[in-house]
Amino acid sequence: MKGYEKYFRGYFMPPVPCYDWVKKEYIDKAPIWCSVDLRDGNQSLIKPMSLDQKVEFFKLLVQIGFKEIEVGFPAASETEYEFLRTLIDGDLIPDDVTIQVLTQARPHIIKKTFKALEGCKKAIVHLYNSTSLAQREQVFKKSKEEIKEIAVEGAKMLVELAKEAKGDIYYEYSPESFTGTEPDYALEVCNAVIDVFKPTPNHKLIINLPATVEMSLPHVYASQIEYMSKYMNKRDSVIISLHPHNDRGTGVADAELGLLAGADRIEGTLFGNGERTGNVDVITLALNMYTHGINPILDFSNLPDIIKLYESVTEMKVYDRQPYAGKFVFAAFSGSHQDAISKGLKYHKANKLDTWSVPYLPLDPKDVSREYSADVIRINSQSGKGGIAYILETNFGLNIPPKMRETVGYTVKDVSDKEHKELTPSDVQTIFVENFVNLKTPLKMLEYHFIREGDLFKVMISTEWNGVRKDYLAEGSGRLDAVSNAIKECYNLDYVLTNYNEHALESTSKSEAAAFVSVKFNDKETWGSGIHEDIICASIYALVSAINNQYK
Amino acid sequence: MKGYEKYFRGYFMPPVPCYDWVKKEYIDKAPIWCSVDLRDGNQSLIKPMSLDQKVEFFKLLVQIGFKEIEVGFPAASETEYEFLRTLIDGDLIPDDVTIQVLTQARPHIIKKTFKALEGCKKAIVHLYNSTSLAQREQVFKKSKEEIKEIAVEGAKMLVELAKEAKGDIYYEYSPESFTGTEPDYALEVCNAVIDVFKPTPNHKLIINLPATVEMSLPHVYASQIEYMSKYMNKRDSVIISLHPHNDRGTGVADAELGLLAGADRIEGTLFGNGERTGNVDVITLALNMYTHGINPILDFSNLPDIIKLYESVTEMKVYDRQPYAGKFVFAAFSGSHQDAISKGLKYHKANKLDTWSVPYLPLDPKDVSREYSADVIRINSQSGKGGIAYILETNFGLNIPPKMRETVGYTVKDVSDKEHKELTPSDVQTIFVENFVNLKTPLKMLEYHFIREGDLFKVMISTEWNGVRKDYLAEGSGRLDAVSNAIKECYNLDYVLTNYNEHALESTSKSEAAAFVSVKFNDKETWGSGIHEDIICASIYALVSAINNQYK
Repeated sequence: MKGYEKYFRGYFMPPVPCYDWVKKEYIDKAPIWCSVDLRDGNQSLIKPMSLDQKVEFFKLLVQIGFKEIEVGFPAASETEYEFLRTLIDGDLIPDDVTIQVLTQARPHIIKKTFKALEGCKKAIVHLYNSTSLAQREQVFKKSKEEIKEIAVEGAKMLVELAKEAKGDIYYEYSPESFTGTEPDYALEVCNAVIDVFKPTPNHKLIINLPATVEMSLPHVYASQIEYMSKYMNKRDSVIISLHPHNDRGTGVADAELGLLAGADRIEGTLFGNGERTGNVDVITLALNMYTHGINPILDFSNLPDIIKLYESVTEMKVYDRQPYAGKFVFAAFSGSHQDAISKGLKYHKANKLDTWSVPYLPLDPKDVSREYSADVIRINSQSGKGGIAYILETNFGLNIPPKMRETVGYTVKDVSDKEHKELTPSDVQTIFVENFVNLKTPLKMLEYHFIREGDLFKVMISTEWNGVRKDYLAEGSGRLDAVSNAIKECYNLDYVLTNYNEHALESTSKSEAAAFVSVKFNDKETWGSGIHEDIICASIYALVSAINNQYK
Repeated sequence: MKGYEKYFRGYFMPPVPCYDWVKKEYIDKAPIWCSVDLRDGNQSLIKPMSLDQKVEFFKLLVQIGFKEIEVGFPAASETEYEFLRTLIDGDLIPDDVTIQVLTQARPHIIKKTFKALEGCKKAIVHLYNSTSLAQREQVFKKSKEEIKEIAVEGAKMLVELAKEAKGDIYYEYSPESFTGTEPDYALEVCNAVIDVFKPTPNHKLIINLPATVEMSLPHVYASQIEYMSKYMNKRDSVIISLHPHNDRGTGVADAELGLLAGADRIEGTLFGNGERTGNVDVITLALNMYTHGINPILDFSNLPDIIKLYESVTEMKVYDRQPYAGKFVFAAFSGSHQDAISKGLKYHKANKLDTWSVPYLPLDPKDVSREYSADVIRINSQSGKGGIAYILETNFGLNIPPKMRETVGYTVKDVSDKEHKELTPSDVQTIFVENFVNLKTPLKMLEYHFIREGDLFKVMISTEWNGVRKDYLAEGSGRLDAVSNAIKECYNLDYVLTNYNEHALESTSKSEAAAFVSVKFNDKETWGSGIHEDIICASIYALVSAINNQYK
């Protein structure tokens, strides 16, 4: 692939090494979460949301547990202004939720912003300007000093005009395109802005350091964040916020390593919606903490309903392999995975574990309202005996004996391979029944009558072989043994009954039993199963089925 | 969200700190790439690929530039066996491409594997067994020593049976579920396997360290890899391979930080297809290197065709926000982004730059066969004057004067906002023409005749105002000035002509000109445009249009 020579690494390393974060192993506390679904998420849609859709989405965000929600740019368009007024006038903002609005540093825009906020008890007003080398040179054609002045003048104007505003106003400042900005210069700009806003530990300023465009590996971003956090003025009066995008597919890593590096707050969206490759996905971040045993604060236990609403208002589709949320993310088609999962689930049940460590399932699907049988063990030509046995057991109460599983597995997989499709649990059951249960060709058991004589059982069987009836009397040490002897002698068959298992079938309304038998003719072993309300009858049907499978 | 208490961090830190990798800033060389699309990718599909589809996919992988391709598990199913035979018998494996096959450590399976490989000049035989704590306890119920024995015995069997195989056989060993394995124990197992395979610097062994399930933050995985790489026996005879999955959304970060930590090779798939959340996406990895100026070796310049084939054989859909490949990843709907992109593109052109640093576009869309006008600047209610001007300029050759852009921008956005839809370039043009170009109501210019007298221009105009005709004679210092005076006097209008611009319209087949005029009545400024083959006529139409917009 030609053309790579025109690219260079457009980011800048901190002026001093900042690697302390690497020694922290995991995130031990949820950050402050801020949803930017109604801003970044909305502006990246082909069809931005309508007012009603925005209200619906806002309610969802509140329900999930976001305490800070960016609601847009009220001075930029009538729709965004009206949305904010609807939230305030309709009393839709709970007391513990703070809304955040964007503004540019121009007097009439700031004035309109505060007008839009009238009657709102508490708000975060978010000011930003681009500081990157590329934007300074190409877009604004201004020096470092001039760009810093834009930030400082904007902050001053905001503070001045806020004096007339009612309500509790907090500020956020973003050196936009931070990842393309020299860290020492970004620090200089932020410190200059801090000097204007004069935050205190009781009334903090949010400094947001966006990966507006991802430009480096995630550990470089973490080092940049550590540098900013270490050298920022009035650090105890500042909340450091991250706003990662996902251009290099490492937005989640940026957020996570950035939190280790000292950040306190994350701006992101549901399912990583947002411009281009999207913003960081807060669901992934939250459930990554959850599966490390950390309370994520946000609640995604009803993920399928969240997906439904999201897809309806955004007209986006949640990707099938989206971590935690995608349709396929719990699916195990492969035999070895299915086997390990079903053994793991059994192990957890048998040992009454209150911890979760099932192989191949980092999250218990039930924690996000998904089901093992529908979403996890799925059967196609790649599947194995373990998964197929699991499906038969969990859906139909059939506990296939371990030695029979390979045979059943190959039979089922073969159908999927030939028909080139996924099999539903009911398909699997049908294949099992057709190939193993109560088979009647060539041998059919019509009747049997037992007489017990001391330790011996005598039996009179009536059978058909390809429709030709024969009766025969024989004996054995048990009922099944007597029937087997009668069949052997009647048809002059030479085989050994190699396995016998049976169990009650709990899942059916009738009290049925299932029996499983294998027989060996020379070296060839075949299996059969019988299902009947009478356990003796089930066993005999299993034997007959196993014999019939010799003639397939 | 309740329930997090049942989880714990199921990974293990290396026994000694391993953080040297963090000081490496970027990946300076492409790894050995191995595609596992036909294995992990295939086994995660609802409908695994048919033989023909697999052959088609294999050819695509070769064309992209993969030199190592895992083709499946030939001893596991007829389909996989036949596929391998088709590749070999059909002479479809280029000399510089090595195929890789999986096998289990059972004699008849190994024998069948070598039988499947007959006639193949060179192959990698991949042996694996699960080593994690969870699988040892829950699935295999075996001790560390017993699990190591499985690996060692498997390796011995492979070496023994390979003696009869023709062709050049290389080996790969994976301690499957490495990320759930104690690193010192994983090292012990790998070293034991190395002792059996006895690799040399000229005939290396691949040791593959999969993030079978992602369990930690990516920097923890990097430290695990650094530990393995530092302490592994015969390191110069071993290729360390990574096989990251994406359960925590950080598969790309695992691969990248793992490469910094000493790995030499990556197993992954196109678009991150694979079990659950998928394998690591090699396209993202390769293009991440590419946009850092590093030759990725793989060629994705024809990404739209690759997407087409991929979607057709896998029946998967490439996610709209998938890095580099998704439909929306170059899209800029927001005004400020559009403005910066169009200024950046102009800056690059004007300065004849052979480097790429356009804001908001980490990759030049053209490098993957995408277009600026169709895929980048897209217009909806969130868009701005810069983007709309860009669309009019690049698609229709209309260079809207900077001062007119805000008016045009609001007019176009307003249509998108009200009609609640994205606007195509042709929609934007229509809106511009209907609202600004050659307007005829209330004022319509019917005719004009000029007479030049020294420095003065006299003009006789024939006009209609709401259908009522008036003729008028006036003079001015230029032609447009004369016409403006005539209109003012004829209709008793009081305005100032505040702006005038014109340019030739290069993009049309006729040699037309476009003119842009603003007029100010008291404080209200309005704009109009005229398009005509005659520049004077275009200017007059622009003036008349600007006047007409006062009466809208």
